[in-house]
Amino acid sequence: MSDTSTVCAITLFPSVTMLDVIGPYEALWRVPGVDVVLVAAERGPVRAGGGGELVAAATFSEVPHPEIVLVPGGPGTAAAQRDAVLLEYLRRAAATADWVVSVCSGSLVLASAGLLEGRRASTYWASRDVLRGMGVDVSTERVTFDGNVVTASGVSAGVDLGLRLAARLAGDDTAAAIQLGMEYAPEPPFEIGGNEGPPPDLVQRFEELRAGWPAKTGGVR
Amino acid sequence: MSDTSTVCAITLFPSVTMLDVIGPYEALWRVPGVDVVLVAAERGPVRAGGGGELVAAATFSEVPHPEIVLVPGGPGTAAAQRDAVLLEYLRRAAATADWVVSVCSGSLVLASAGLLEGRRASTYWASRDVLRGMGVDVSTERVTFDGNVVTASGVSAGVDLGLRLAARLAGDDTAAAIQLGMEYAPEPPFEIGGNEGPPPDLVQRFEELRAGWPAKTGGVR
Repeated sequence: MSDTSTVCAITLFPSVTMLDVIGPYEALWRVPGVDVVLVAAERGPVRAGGGGELVAAATFSEVPHPEIVLVPGGPGTAAAQRDAVLLEYLRRAAATADWVVSVCSGSLVLASAGLLEGRRASTYWASRDVLRGMGVDVSTERVTFDGNVVTASGVSAGVDLGLRLAARLAGDDTAAAIQLGMEYAPEPPFEIGGNEGPPPDLVQRFEELRAGWPAKTGGVR
Repeated sequence: MSDTSTVCAITLFPSVTMLDVIGPYEALWRVPGVDVVLVAAERGPVRAGGGGELVAAATFSEVPHPEIVLVPGGPGTAAAQRDAVLLEYLRRAAATADWVVSVCSGSLVLASAGLLEGRRASTYWASRDVLRGMGVDVSTERVTFDGNVVTASGVSAGVDLGLRLAARLAGDDTAAAIQLGMEYAPEPPFEIGGNEGPPPDLVQRFEELRAGWPAKTGGVR
């Protein structure tokens, strides 16, 4: 770690969405000089949506001033928005960070911490109205850069965000090589409606499906 | 879990690539009746490429006959190919599984277990020659179905595999709704050359980058 000049702290919380974390993780740890560390109030396993577990390797107080602070979203977002310890960490870290970042409904947590005032931000497609209701200028772009605040739309958009942030950190040539490292030449099997939003029948099927998820997401949706 | 009829076991090993695991995980746990469990020889944290940790929730012997068995790849693949306990688990699980699956260089582990004989399979772009050298008919498709063997190309291709397997399990309408749940409308920022392979200058930059990764991947590349 002797050549590390940039620490990226990704905050975990109960019922986080794993891919919100791992998309940017995979892009950013491959950047020369960057270390990505998963952080939480306490070290140890954190149960994610779907029942899997990621490990927080460090506490908030052990990584007080990361160069990049990133908050993911997921079924646990509403509880995270009321987590005073997490919000205080985000505020303190953001005060000195080069980049303040969210993926998916993590933007709601940034907003709850007061970090999106006067900002334009992306969020999960199903969370746009909520974020708008918090006074944020909601972008429908997949990734939005506004000053040093970088926000992505939902879940898999964290991969796009990670690569675009890698390009800011290390240049396009390096980020393209990282994209090759991740073999990111996606072939999504279905049409889901693009940035402006999904068709109503697909939303209805999604809501039916989501009704069955709380058993797998710690009781929340 | 009372309505669960399908268990998907994803095998972990040291220096696995997290996204190889989490791409299919996010698609498959959202399928009604499917539970995804991360398994290893012993329960507990497993260090992945990039330094993060996933938790094996169950041992191999606790999940002997999953309906789906999936092996990811990553910097630890070569060691995994020599891991007799892992290979024996894969052989036993595959003997009764509905689906035998790999992502990225996980195909090399399937081949080492003798599970790709006479099969056509995808793998990580940089592992194609190695897999071909093991006598496997290598596909350049992003996801290849050959009977009950399903294999993906590298890292992020596990998302595509997960959604396509979800469609086989639950139908296109459900899989499309899951794709919406993951907001998978990707916008890769760079061109990396498609399924036939990357341009030589990009490969060279990738190799230069990768030379710096062993410090972050448990000493292996």
